[in-house]
Parts: sequence; C-alpha cells; structure tokens
Amino acid sequence: MSRWEPNARSRLEQAALKLYVERGFEQTTVAGIAKEAGLTERTFFRYFADKREVLFSGAGALEELLVTSVASSPDSVAPIDAIAGALEAAGALLQQRREYSRQRQSVIAANPELQERELLKLASLASALAEALRRRGVREPAASLTAEAGIAVFKVAFDRWVNGSGRPTLPRLIRDSLEELKAVTSGR
Amino acid sequence: MSRWEPNARSRLEQAALKLYVERGFEQTTVAGIAKEAGLTERTFFRYFADKREVLFSGAGALEELLVTSVASSPDSVAPIDAIAGALEAAGALLQQRREYSRQRQSVIAANPELQERELLKLASLASALAEALRRRGVREPAASLTAEAGIAVFKVAFDRWVNGSGRPTLPRLIRDSLEELKAVTSGR
Repeated sequence: MSRWEPNARSRLEQAALKLYVERGFEQTTVAGIAKEAGLTERTFFRYFADKREVLFSGAGALEELLVTSVASSPDSVAPIDAIAGALEAAGALLQQRREYSRQRQSVIAANPELQERELLKLASLASALAEALRRRGVREPAASLTAEAGIAVFKVAFDRWVNGSGRPTLPRLIRDSLEELKAVTSGR
Repeated sequence: MSRWEPNARSRLEQAALKLYVERGFEQTTVAGIAKEAGLTERTFFRYFADKREVLFSGAGALEELLVTSVASSPDSVAPIDAIAGALEAAGALLQQRREYSRQRQSVIAANPELQERELLKLASLASALAEALRRRGVREPAASLTAEAGIAVFKVAFDRWVNGSGRPTLPRLIRDSLEELKAVTSGR
C-alpha cells in the first residue's frame, strides 16, 4: 500500500519532461521518472500506461473542451466559426503553459514514433470535431472538411507559436491563420 | 545468389496484401509473404525493410508526382489550384488501382500502428507540398496552410472514394471537396 501523494500526476509529468529534454526520450526509464519525482514506479503506473502516455495524457481533456465548445456555440454561428471559437479556447489554455508546450514539442520532434502518436491524436480530434458538427446538423462532407480545415489551422498556428517568441499569442495566431486559410482557398 | 525474378516487387506487394486481408497484418510473416509470392525471404528484403513498408512503398513516388506537378504548373495558377491540380493527378493514378487501395485501406484501418504510419506519410506530403509552394515564391504561413488544406481535401475525398462505389471518381471527389472547403471556410 502506498500512501496518497499530493500532485503526483503533475510531479510525474514535470519530472518526465525534464528527463526527456535532458537525456532524450529513449534513454529515460519509468524508474528514473519516478525517482526524479520522489515517487514510486507503482504510483507512476496508477496514472500512466507507459512513458509515452505522459506526453499525451492531456488529449482527452483537450478533446472534451473542443467538443463542448462546439456543442455550446449558438446555432446562428457558422460551422467554421464554431470550430475556430473552440480552437481559440483551447489555445488560451495552452498559452498559459507555453514553456511546457515548447519543451514537449522539442521531445516529440526528435522522435518519429512520438510524431506518429501526436498525428493520431490530432486525427482523433478532427474526427471528434466532425462528429460535434454533425450533431449540430452539418452534413457530410462539409462536417469533415470543416473539422480537418480547423485542425490544419491549429497545426500551422501551433507551429508558429511554439517556434516563435510567444507573441502573438496562440489564440491570435489561430484567428490569423484562419483568415489566411480563407484567403488562400479563395485563390488569393 | 538468387536469380532475377520478373515483377518480384509487384508479386510481393500483391501476396502481402492478400495475406494481410485474409489473416490480418499481425498474423502475417515475411516468410509467409515470400512463400505466397513464390519467392525467397532474401528477395523480399531486397525490396522492403519490413512487412510494414510493403504498404507504404508507393509514398516516395506519390510525393515526387505531387511536387513535380506543383513545380510545373504555370506561375499564373493560384497556389491552391496548383495543389488541387497535383492532387487530381495523383487521384487519377490511384483511380486505376481502386481495388488495391480499398484492400490496403481496410488493413490500415484495422491497425493503429499502421494508421499512425499513414498519418506520418500524409504529414510528410504536406511538408513537401509547402516546400514546393515556397519555391514558387509563396510565403509563410500561406504555403503551409495551402498545403495542409490540400491534404485535408485529399483525406476527405479519399475516404469517400474508398468507402463508396468508385463513382464519382477520385479526381472528381477531390475537385468537389475543394469546392466544399471553399464554401465552408467562407462561412456558408
């Protein structure tokens, strides 16, 4: 029986990211992460299935935030603007964790297997957004195209944000990227 | 020394796909594929690094086709139309191999690891298309957004095509999906 540890999840996340940055993802073990966090391996496995999942544990909450935001936007809002509003809300949250996002991204960029996992999570987000639009009565293929366009905007905006100085903010870059997408698709 | 075998690559591809469909990807071995094709394992490894690569060996040629098509389209063509033209050319090739594409997709859909690999290949295509646009003088983030929008259109069109009856054709579905993307991004 191990005792309850305050902030165990957050401590493990921070310890893992620190070691992934310092030693590389491949070279880091669960035992090393637990030690760095001052916790046991057993506690680690209470929160995460493996060392890869530490980097993706926020995906479920992000998806829920996006889907709830799309569902709660008024019917009068055009589908693309419902998606944009949801992405900006997610962007505002990420903005508060920019250093974490930046380090996480550097770890993922260095490892093809992690890149693949990240892309699968983004594809899942696109599917969830398309489903949220269909529940608003948007038909196919409009629902899927709107959702995929939203994820494309998010990817490009996130990339600029995480590799830039942090200004403009992520929500602002998402808004700007959507405007740019509208311009390029109309052939300008 | 093994003797030269006619159409070895194509025979191995067909044998692999047949077994992946019949037995499942996980349950198929390289030895089984070689036997099915009437070839040796040694011949298999002359063409493919592993059994996963059999499904993705066409990605390089596809990328080259897309990039060449974008590079050779006249300067007067808008970036989004250069991308659309390239994707339609690729679609015309895939249209000739619809049954192969359909079976390949069913194998990939059944295996998360293969889905991740497929998404990574699509992300590589988006990067290559963005680079081709930058060489035409398109600036960032317009180049990346146009390329990502093109891949979004391709994904949605491919999905409709491969799960449909084969009509409309893939190039037609790509054209229709781009029109739909233009409509949804303009808020209709």
